[in-house]
Order: sequence, then structure tokens, then C-alpha cells
Amino acid sequence: MSDFQPPLRAMRLLMDELGELPAIAGLPGFEEATPELADAVLEEAARFAGDILAPLNAVGDRVGCRWRPEGVATPPGWDEAYRHFCAGGWNGISADPAYGGQGLPCVLSVAVRELFASANLAFSIGPLLTAGAIEALRHCASDSLRQRYLPKMIDGSWSGTMNLTEPQAGSDLAQLRTRAEPQADGRFRIFGQKIFISYGEHELTENIIHLVLARLPDAPPGVRGISLFVVPKFLPDANGQPGERNDVVCSAIEHKLGIHGSPTCVMVYGENGGAIGELVGEANRGLEYMFVMMNEARHGVGVQGVALGERALQLATAYAAERRQGRDAVSGEALVSIDHHPDVQRMLRGMQMRVEATRALAYYTAGLLDRAHAEPEEAARQAALYMAELLMPLVKAGGTEMAVEVTSTGIQVHGGMGFIEETGAARLWRDARITPIYEGTTGIQANDLIFRKLLRDKGATAERLFADIAATRAELAADAGLAALGEQLQAALAHWQAATAWVLARIKTAPGPVLFAAVPYLELSGLVTGGWLLGRLALASRRLQAAGCTDTDLCTTRRTLARLYGDTCLSRTGGLAATVMAGDSALTAD
Amino acid sequence: MSDFQPPLRAMRLLMDELGELPAIAGLPGFEEATPELADAVLEEAARFAGDILAPLNAVGDRVGCRWRPEGVATPPGWDEAYRHFCAGGWNGISADPAYGGQGLPCVLSVAVRELFASANLAFSIGPLLTAGAIEALRHCASDSLRQRYLPKMIDGSWSGTMNLTEPQAGSDLAQLRTRAEPQADGRFRIFGQKIFISYGEHELTENIIHLVLARLPDAPPGVRGISLFVVPKFLPDANGQPGERNDVVCSAIEHKLGIHGSPTCVMVYGENGGAIGELVGEANRGLEYMFVMMNEARHGVGVQGVALGERALQLATAYAAERRQGRDAVSGEALVSIDHHPDVQRMLRGMQMRVEATRALAYYTAGLLDRAHAEPEEAARQAALYMAELLMPLVKAGGTEMAVEVTSTGIQVHGGMGFIEETGAARLWRDARITPIYEGTTGIQANDLIFRKLLRDKGATAERLFADIAATRAELAADAGLAALGEQLQAALAHWQAATAWVLARIKTAPGPVLFAAVPYLELSGLVTGGWLLGRLALASRRLQAAGCTDTDLCTTRRTLARLYGDTCLSRTGGLAATVMAGDSALTAD
Repeated sequence: MSDFQPPLRAMRLLMDELGELPAIAGLPGFEEATPELADAVLEEAARFAGDILAPLNAVGDRVGCRWRPEGVATPPGWDEAYRHFCAGGWNGISADPAYGGQGLPCVLSVAVRELFASANLAFSIGPLLTAGAIEALRHCASDSLRQRYLPKMIDGSWSGTMNLTEPQAGSDLAQLRTRAEPQADGRFRIFGQKIFISYGEHELTENIIHLVLARLPDAPPGVRGISLFVVPKFLPDANGQPGERNDVVCSAIEHKLGIHGSPTCVMVYGENGGAIGELVGEANRGLEYMFVMMNEARHGVGVQGVALGERALQLATAYAAERRQGRDAVSGEALVSIDHHPDVQRMLRGMQMRVEATRALAYYTAGLLDRAHAEPEEAARQAALYMAELLMPLVKAGGTEMAVEVTSTGIQVHGGMGFIEETGAARLWRDARITPIYEGTTGIQANDLIFRKLLRDKGATAERLFADIAATRAELAADAGLAALGEQLQAALAHWQAATAWVLARIKTAPGPVLFAAVPYLELSGLVTGGWLLGRLALASRRLQAAGCTDTDLCTTRRTLARLYGDTCLSRTGGLAATVMAGDSALTAD
Repeated sequence: MSDFQPPLRAMRLLMDELGELPAIAGLPGFEEATPELADAVLEEAARFAGDILAPLNAVGDRVGCRWRPEGVATPPGWDEAYRHFCAGGWNGISADPAYGGQGLPCVLSVAVRELFASANLAFSIGPLLTAGAIEALRHCASDSLRQRYLPKMIDGSWSGTMNLTEPQAGSDLAQLRTRAEPQADGRFRIFGQKIFISYGEHELTENIIHLVLARLPDAPPGVRGISLFVVPKFLPDANGQPGERNDVVCSAIEHKLGIHGSPTCVMVYGENGGAIGELVGEANRGLEYMFVMMNEARHGVGVQGVALGERALQLATAYAAERRQGRDAVSGEALVSIDHHPDVQRMLRGMQMRVEATRALAYYTAGLLDRAHAEPEEAARQAALYMAELLMPLVKAGGTEMAVEVTSTGIQVHGGMGFIEETGAARLWRDARITPIYEGTTGIQANDLIFRKLLRDKGATAERLFADIAATRAELAADAGLAALGEQLQAALAHWQAATAWVLARIKTAPGPVLFAAVPYLELSGLVTGGWLLGRLALASRRLQAAGCTDTDLCTTRRTLARLYGDTCLSRTGGLAATVMAGDSALTAD
């Protein structure tokens, strides 16, 4: 048991209203995803998260992982939790049914992943990476490789890793040096060092399947000469069981600021003759294959941010309801709980608003990913994919930057107690700090938004989004209690459009100023998109209320949050647009 | 030796141009503070900070303090560093010469304190608290108490603590329960528990002098019934040497997020018959006495924020100059150091700009504190005091909130390495997180700004500040390269004035909305004030250049930072003013 309260009703509202679960369940392959199934899955996931994962979070942080010559020990209790996790079928929730997965839509699995990450981020990272490796193999590997690896990875008895980074190659994968030498049997020997490999070594599973980026001897330089290899810790034997130990070892784990329960490994390949690996797909297409799953991985990290923000909100809310201090400024009542104080209300409502806005975007985008996968018409799939890909940097950067700020506010609500580790608020903040870094920093997300997602169709997908926002604005204008929000959204949209035009006009000719303005542009885009989705939720809450819903949190609160967002976030878009459009002129003028 | 590079030229520019050191040195009592002395003191402090304090910061964080029944052990090497600290005369730098201090003006000691906090925040906290205790005793204690305690506290052989917080009494000191029972000999016996007492117990000094807030038996309830007592760890004997052990013990130290080298103690008074204490000043005026030194303490914490931001900037700048990754977006050059990338430049310049703006305000305010102390005319002293007191919440909250954000950006510049503790960037971020909490949270600062500093003269001091800003704006308008900044400043001032009028109009009648808007109002005030001071520095840099200065960092860079501030910070004031003036309407509308 723990104090984690899974926010199932709020999640369900987003799944239905923004992720459009009912419509998704009508698409081929997702027929099982009925509302009843969704409820059942969420409730079971909430129980597992609250009863099993959340209580292990503190010990995971305090004890952390320990490196020993024979392997890496995860924190006490994690081994048993992982066995429960697999037995519950959670590892394969969204994986291909052809290999034993459950094939649930993303708009449902996203909520499950959020629950697990809220309860215990460090634990949840392992399965997230395994899911990424599963997707990469499913999309890109030969049938033989898929048959050998996917069932075990989907049932969780084997885990997966992603090996990209090397000491000299972080964001710049062109610098990659790990090499793969062909053998006579068609396999390869891998030599090199990889760093920052999450769950590169541990004792939770009987095998660990490393997906490794490396260069073939004749590969062209740069990112076009990178291939993807599968390198198992134990080579599967003739029966498909873990056999011979491969030449890959974890030489150290990092001493990190947070996620202490997640082992971050230095992996050494080929110190004793070469690690045996097999090529995934075609040679020199490794980076492209990585990008296949990058969208999903970045979505997952954005959701981690939402999850940490939610947990911080709950901790702070509970503390503020209990801690009595000071006099009510309006009624004069002495020694009230601190959630009576307007500044504490500002912090708590602000946290909730920001968690909700980023969650709304993540769930909305999850629905788009499902459509991109399952819409019968190619054009509909393509349109959904482009929109999802446009929004992905906002999901990733927005959710993670939110997490750093909201967990910080969570500490602030606790006052001095927030600085004491036992309270738990500080742990969330420490854990959150990795999220705007891994799977592509916020700066990388901003580049992706502008130089890939905007540029490739010259803003056409963005224009579709602008039109969607304008439509919501018109609906808001017709609601007396939300008309002011509609005006704020209209102004915000105009700021975003102006900044977008500025960016598009310079994207080819003046990359310097555009790159300087990229993160503010990303932030502006995220702010407006969040306001749009909170506006849609506010409108939905009106409909729910008209239909007889008496749940204050689902109805009234959604409108409160949307209005607060208008007053505190949409109000910022004019200034941000000015910042964008100033470019880097401050550095060059005199 | 360490990698800390004391920013002496930037400091000196602020001391001269904003703190007006040359004018301060003309005031009675500060005659010794010549430019030559300032240089000598700064250089010596920089050497001590870089050679002695900075190298101990990592071990202080890693090993931390250890509680043992016989006392609290500080980290390895700290004892020796403290002896050097006292031998160098640093402990008494700003203390009253009548008791052995050096009596240097605040505008000089502020820079020394910043250097020490940059090098090793956890170490510097002890002397800062001793300085606060010294000031409290000097202002409020009897001559007998002062003679007994001040010389030893000023030479550093005894240290001082401030005992305010109790488990049920944090921001709300009305809840204070520690009690003081009068004895026949005129002394008191103190009973109670205090928490969060920095340096409450340690082995650096031969005695520890606790200043303790407690209630007398007949005291009125609430904050008007609190008295201040001096309670030494060892009662001074007839020769003034540490004698009998007093009935005060440290029962535990906290396990904290940061500042591990600074012991945060639970202090228990009177478990064995009562701790002997003496009353400071008059009964029931304890809180008032605490406020005497609160201004200085809050100024000191704001400077801690500046110090951490500076250190984070230096770490990130050094890393970005060394780390090679990616291609120059403009020249196309491969594998450049990452400070070639516009987004990294944005982060580094943004960090520098924010450190500079908060340092400028802290040094400007230090000059005001000196004037409040030493101006010959009572009216001038009073005017300076009121302005310093108006600005103090901006120094404290602005410097500390900046520190949390800038140290976070410092991590981001490091990418994945920023999350690894050995890098040091994460430690600065963890250390920074306490600064917006202790000595009054940001919320408390915002209340202080509005309900004490604005209200007491109905905005008259603020009006004087507005006029000063308008004057600078006019000067900027006359400089072609800074005219745009002048326009931004003018708009920002108008936003601040509108928000101030909104606050003043509701301060009595609608405290709820005003309290809800208090922190955004504080932030707005800090933004405008920072822009004003950077504008003044930009103008000063023009004058310096005209006078032949060829130091790029002192001249060109100051204008770059000011313009960047206009584009990225002053641009935010319109949105913030809208947020302020929305009050809490989002919570109440439907």
C-alpha cells in the first residue's frame, strides 16, 4: 500500500474526450478496447501501481543499484515486483498479438504507463526500453530474429536495451565508433564501448537483449554508416533458451542525481574476441530504424514527466491539507491548513493545471498514434501520423520541462520539509531532472519540431492544427463562462501563427537566429496547444454537466483549470512570440 | 586549487556603478573602504575561496555531516578551513570595530560573501548565521551581553545560531511553544525543541551561542509574546572562557537534498532541568529583534542564489567550450565545441544575464543598506532604508528563484553528464533548492513586499523607484544601440505600474485576490527592476568604452546582456501583469 491515488477519472476523461477511445475501439485490430475493458485494465494497473510499485520507490532511491563483478543488483524487492509485473501481463500490453502481446491501443496503454511511472519511475524505465526494443525488432528485423526474440521479450522473461551513446557520441551520433566485423557464419563481432545504457545489466531477467548501433567496415562516415545489431547477453541455444555467455559486460554503473533504482551502465563489447551480434534489417539503416521507435520512446518520456508531475501534485496536496499554519486571510480563522492560503492554492492549482495540460496533449497524441496505425484509409493514417509527429516534440519537451517545474513547486508547498529527503518531494524532483535530457534534450526536440516537422511540409500540418484551434476558439466564444478563455486562445493562436511565419521565412536562409529561437518557439507551441486542449476539456465538462454529471472534479474543476491556464499561461504567449521573433539580434547588435 | 574563477571585474563594476562604492567610502565610518582596499580584499577573498573553500565543496556534499552522541562531525578538512577563515579575519569583515570587527561597508562585504558562497555554500552558511547573531546582539542586547559574547563571535572562536522554527511553528511563529522560566538570579531556564537549526551543533568552534525565541510564563499569546534569549552551549566562566556545559543538545541532524556539509539540527533545550539563558533586550520583543537582522539575512540568502548561479554558469561555460559535438549550423564546420550551437549560446547567455541581473540588484541594495546606516542626514538614511526594504524581497526571492532555474539550465548544458553527480552541476542545483525556502519562502517574500513594504507608505517608495526607472529609460532612448531596450523598459514599467495600482486598490478590501497574485506581482517587480539595472550597466559600459576601456567583457558584453534581457525578460512583463490583474477570478467564475 502507498499514498499514491491513481487519477483514473481524470485519465478516463482524457482518453475518451481527447484520445477518442470510443472511436479508436472501432478501428480494425482494436475491437477489444471497449470502455469496459479500459476500466478493467486501468483498475488493475492502478492496483498494481499502488500496491506493488509505489512502496518500492523509496527503497529504490535510497539503496539504489549496486555493481558487482558478477552483475548489477537491483534494489531489494524489485526482483519480486518484476515477476509480478510479468505475471500480470503488463510487459506486453501494447505489443503485437502475433508474438503474444495484447495489442491494446496506445490511448489505453499510455494511461497504464503513466500509472507505473507515477508509482515508480526507476522501475518503469526497464519495461519502457524493452517495449522500444520490441518495436524496433518487430518493424525492422527478419522473421527469424523476431521468432527468436519477440515472444520472450514480450512475456518479460528477457529484457531489452537501446545502445546508442558513446563517450564522444551523444546528441551527435555521427561520431559513433563501435564497430561490427562480419564473420563467416553471417553473424558479426561487435567491439566498442557504450555509455548511459539504462538496464544494460541487472538480474531481473534470464537474458538481456541489447540493440546496438555500430559501423560495418565498409560503412560510409557519419550517420549514414550506422547499422543496428542485436547482441544478446546469452546467445539463444538450439531450444531458444539462454546459452553461451556473450562477450559483453557492464564495467560500471553511474552515480546519478536521481532514478537510483534504474541501473545506468557502461557497456563494454568485445574485450574477449568480440561480442556476437546479428544485423537487424539492412546495413547502414540503423539510425532510420532507431527513429522508427523514437516517436514512441519520446512519447513515453513525455508521459514520464506527466507521471512525476501527478505524483508531486498528490504529495503536495496531501501535505497542504494536513499542515496547519497561519491564519485565513479572509475569514481570519486561526491555524488553518495551509491549503486555505491563496498562495498555496495558486501553487496547487497551477500544478494541477500544468499536469492536466501536458497529459491532455500526451493522450491526444496517443489517439493519433493509434489512428496512424489502424485507420483503414492510407490518407487518414498519414494525416494522423504527421500530426502525431508534429506534436511529439511538444509532448516530450512539454511533459518533461513541466515535470522539473511542477516537482519543484511541490517541494515549495512543503516548505522546509520539502528539503528533507524522507518527505519524498525531493526525490520526484531529482528523478524528473533526467527527463528533459534523455531520448533527445529539449534543444533537440526544438530542432526536430522546426527543422523536421515544420519544414518537411512547409507548415501544412501546423496549419491544420491552427484550424482545429480556431474551431475550438469559436465554441468557447459561445459559452459565457468560457468566452474570455476563447479570446485568450485567439490571441495566443495569433502569436503562434506570427512566430511560425517568422520561423518558416528564415528556416533556410537564417538558421542561426531560428536555432537561437527554437526552444522559445517550442515552448510557445506547447503553451498554445495545451490551452486548446484544456479549452476542449472545459467544453466537454459543460456537456457532461448538462448530461447530469455531478462529479465536481470532472465538471467544474476542468473549467477552473482552463481559465487559470488562460490567465497564467496563454497570457505569456505574446511575450514568447516577441522573444522568438527577436531571434539572436541581442548578440549581434551594438 | 579549483576551477572556480572569481568574477572580480564584473563584481567590481557593480560595486562601483550600482553600489556606488566611491560615494559610500565618503560616508562617516566607511573612510577606509577605498578602491585600493576593495581590490585588495576582493583578491584575497578570491584566493581563499578558490584555494581553500572550493576544493572542499565536493567532499562536503559526498561525506556530509555525521551525528554522533558526543557531537556533530563536519566533513573532512572543514575544521582546518574554518581556522584559516578566522585567521584571515573574514568572520568579522562587516562587524562593529568596537568589538574587533572590520566594519567594512555592505557593498564590499556582499562581494566577499558571494565569493565564499560560490566556492562552498554549505561552509558559508555557518559564518552567515554567526554574522546574523552578532547583529542581533549588537542591536538589541545589553552592554554586558555584548561584552561577553561579541568579541569571541567576531573573531570566530565562537559561532552563533538562530533558533526560530519548531515542528508546529514554521512560517507561523505565533505557534511557538518553547518556554523560558525566570530564575532567582535573573537568568532563565529554557525548555523546548527547535528544528532546522543550521550549525546548531558542530566541532568547528569552542562554543556555540544560540539565539532562541521562547515565551515567558506571562507572555501574551501569538507573536507579541515572544522573547529572545541567548543560550550558550558552554556557559562563559568568570574569565569569559567556555565553562559549564549547558542543557542543550542536538538530538539528530536532517538527511537533506543538498547543503550536506551544513548540519541541520534538531535542538533540544532543557531535558535535564532547563537550559540556562539570558534575556536579550526587553521581554516580548523577540520577533521585532529578529526582524532587525532579517533584512540582512534575506539579503545574504539572495546573494547565495547569485553565488550558485555564477558557479553553475562557470561550470557550464567550461564544459561547453570543451565538449565537441555536432556541426556548426552556419559555417558547416564539423565537430565543433557545443558553445558554437545557438541553443547552447542561448542557455549560456541567458544564465549569465540572469545572474548579472540578480547580482546587480543585490549590490545596488547593499549600497542602500550602507547609506541607511551611514548617511549623515536622518532623511537620507530613512529614504535609503525604505528603498532597501522595498527591494529586499526582490533580492531574496529573485536571487534564489534564479538560482534554481539557472543551476537547472547548467545541468541541461551538460546533457547526460549533468545528471551524473561527479560533474558537480547537479550538486549546485540541489544546494540551490533550499534558498527559496529558508529565511522566508518566496510566498512570504511576496507577502512582505505587498502587505508590509508597499502598504506602509501606500506605494510612495515604489513611486520613487518608478521615477528612477523612467530616468534611465530616457537615457537609453538617447543611445541608438539601446533605444529598443529603452522602449521595452518603458512598456515594462507601465505594466508594473498598472499591476501596482491594481494591488494597492485591493490591498485592504480584497486580500484574497491580492494574495493569490502576490508571487506573480513579486516576479513582475523583480523582472522590471533587473531590466532597469542592466540598462544602467549598459549605459555605464558605453561611458567606460568612451573613456578608453577595451575590456570586452566589461563593455560590449554588458550591452549584449541588457538587450537579451529586454528580448527575453522584459517581454514577459505584459503577460505577468495580466496574470496579476486576473487575481483569483479563474477559481471563482463559472
